[in-house]
Amino acid sequence: MVFNCQLKKVVDDSYEIEIGIGLEARLIDDLKSGLVGKLSRFAVVTDSNVRPLYADKIDSMLKEAGFISNIIEFPAGEKSKTRAVKEYVEDKMLELGYRRDCCVIAVGGGVVSDLAGFTAGTFGRGVPFINYTTTLLAAADASIGGKTAVDTPLATNLIGLFNQPKKVYIDLSAWKTLEKRELISGLAETIKHGCLGDKELFEYLEENIEKVFDIDPEVCRYISEHNCSVKYKVVMQDERESGLREILNLGHTVGRAVETVSDYRLTHGEAVSIGLIAQAKLGKKLGYISHENVQRVTKLCERAGLPVAIPDYIDREVLIKKLYTDKKVRDGKLRFVFQKEIGEMVCFGENSYGLEIAEEQIAEIIKEM
Amino acid sequence: MVFNCQLKKVVDDSYEIEIGIGLEARLIDDLKSGLVGKLSRFAVVTDSNVRPLYADKIDSMLKEAGFISNIIEFPAGEKSKTRAVKEYVEDKMLELGYRRDCCVIAVGGGVVSDLAGFTAGTFGRGVPFINYTTTLLAAADASIGGKTAVDTPLATNLIGLFNQPKKVYIDLSAWKTLEKRELISGLAETIKHGCLGDKELFEYLEENIEKVFDIDPEVCRYISEHNCSVKYKVVMQDERESGLREILNLGHTVGRAVETVSDYRLTHGEAVSIGLIAQAKLGKKLGYISHENVQRVTKLCERAGLPVAIPDYIDREVLIKKLYTDKKVRDGKLRFVFQKEIGEMVCFGENSYGLEIAEEQIAEIIKEM
Repeated sequence: MVFNCQLKKVVDDSYEIEIGIGLEARLIDDLKSGLVGKLSRFAVVTDSNVRPLYADKIDSMLKEAGFISNIIEFPAGEKSKTRAVKEYVEDKMLELGYRRDCCVIAVGGGVVSDLAGFTAGTFGRGVPFINYTTTLLAAADASIGGKTAVDTPLATNLIGLFNQPKKVYIDLSAWKTLEKRELISGLAETIKHGCLGDKELFEYLEENIEKVFDIDPEVCRYISEHNCSVKYKVVMQDERESGLREILNLGHTVGRAVETVSDYRLTHGEAVSIGLIAQAKLGKKLGYISHENVQRVTKLCERAGLPVAIPDYIDREVLIKKLYTDKKVRDGKLRFVFQKEIGEMVCFGENSYGLEIAEEQIAEIIKEM
Repeated sequence: MVFNCQLKKVVDDSYEIEIGIGLEARLIDDLKSGLVGKLSRFAVVTDSNVRPLYADKIDSMLKEAGFISNIIEFPAGEKSKTRAVKEYVEDKMLELGYRRDCCVIAVGGGVVSDLAGFTAGTFGRGVPFINYTTTLLAAADASIGGKTAVDTPLATNLIGLFNQPKKVYIDLSAWKTLEKRELISGLAETIKHGCLGDKELFEYLEENIEKVFDIDPEVCRYISEHNCSVKYKVVMQDERESGLREILNLGHTVGRAVETVSDYRLTHGEAVSIGLIAQAKLGKKLGYISHENVQRVTKLCERAGLPVAIPDYIDREVLIKKLYTDKKVRDGKLRFVFQKEIGEMVCFGENSYGLEIAEEQIAEIIKEM
């Protein structure tokens, strides 16, 4: 005997990304105007660096506006992206009496938005969340796509959810307080977006990249907007990462491996820069990109202050072994995606962008770098 | 500057519930026919009681059919429904090399399906899962609605997801191996379904309830089907528990409180039975149900072997305090839902089934029971 459960429906996860300078008041106005309906209880999730700079202010403004608000803070850094910290945030929320009628506001960079977005997605089987991003990396990487996750000792980003925020704020004034190294790290994902799908962005960076360090509002706005639109175009067509979305991993096969082998002495962006150069060099050998364009990518990364060679302290053999833990590995074979000159990707058939690469091929590049 | 992410789409989470005797071969056939596409790696998640009875067999059959399969087992019982056990299952899966291209098969009762369904929903940001239920309670309660969750020290079922399985199997032959007390526990949710929305089911139980203990296939099939259809009708209209779904909490306000205060000496079903009687008695005072129908509910619970009075060891004052931790509490006020005679619910306005109850009103009932 078979019983049929028909559960077909239209889901609308659309949201706005607002880019501007000092958006705290805007956030409060949006909440007053019903961005998350009639909810009045907010959990401001943040890290120890961002709290004094932005989260305290947002918390005060929420209270002034008559909302209930509490800050939940965890130690800044990639090492906080764990199930244990998620539990800590949940337990704090429960202790403070939060139940299903609340909303999480993530205030910070990529770690905060990943962790808070995941926590919101399972708290009370899902409460709404809002992303108030304070870093270029979060703006470039975490504001579109709905990916949230934590790391485990055995895998990066493998426990998580696709969970779309109700709104994303990209506060450019926050970039002024970033350490230069963090800003540089964010530029790597921006350059990657230029390489994989936006020649105009790439050329704009060639003109203006130094102005990012002065937090030139026009330049920051331009790159934020282009970061969003490149990623949006890709994600829209492939929310579940079945094919096209793989291109966003440009530079990440070597990138993630070198990040791990460096034991996080390299930031994510620095590692991605090394990975970008590695795929460009391999791509040149395979005929996908000219020598001249490899040089342009390399020079742009250098001007951004990013490393373009593998640091001496990295054991090349260990790095090569580590490549096999990449999520694109299938049946034990390494797979890479490649840029096609500047602003396009090499496509190997319908919705197929990955190419199997023999270990010797990439090992050769790694040993030269 | 505002950037719009348009993410509107049609989602189809429809699935089948198959009710029958010995459905292991059916499961394997379904997988061969593409129930979860081309996936060939399965994690059979089960508990220590169910493993030797069903999970080992399913695991062997999967392997014989050429699939990759591993069993992941945790200790049987409600106390395993925790974040720590979820982590254990995740770590085992990662250790065994599972990544995104896998499927979780939950084999067991409600605890297994809640935990495995939640784990599948966040593993690799969501892999498919299948529910092979072996208890009447899971068949009655966990097979429709997509609710998955774990408990925390501060809250029951508050960390979790709405996650629909790809298919549910209700294996009636498994009921033969249930301890009688488990079968009895499952009958409480069945009686509840009769009370809240299926007069025919209630009357069928009045005719046939003893036959459940003989695992009469016709009777078991009938009640499984009616359990599904009652719950389906409610859940279909209200997936996110905004209004109508509240009626499924019939008997659960007192039920969950007495379950907790008994420190789980009462099973969930036994506690729900006490809760059903409590709301019926209170409902009689409020004019929602006749004395005769209260008697019918009481008698049916008694014939099922369920308690209809609060055990002596329960401190009434503690129980009354505990009512305030119920999820239906709003602004510190107790809220109850009530059956209207047999097979209907009292409705207090559009989509509104909860009624505020003064502490004295329910305290009086509790002290009489």
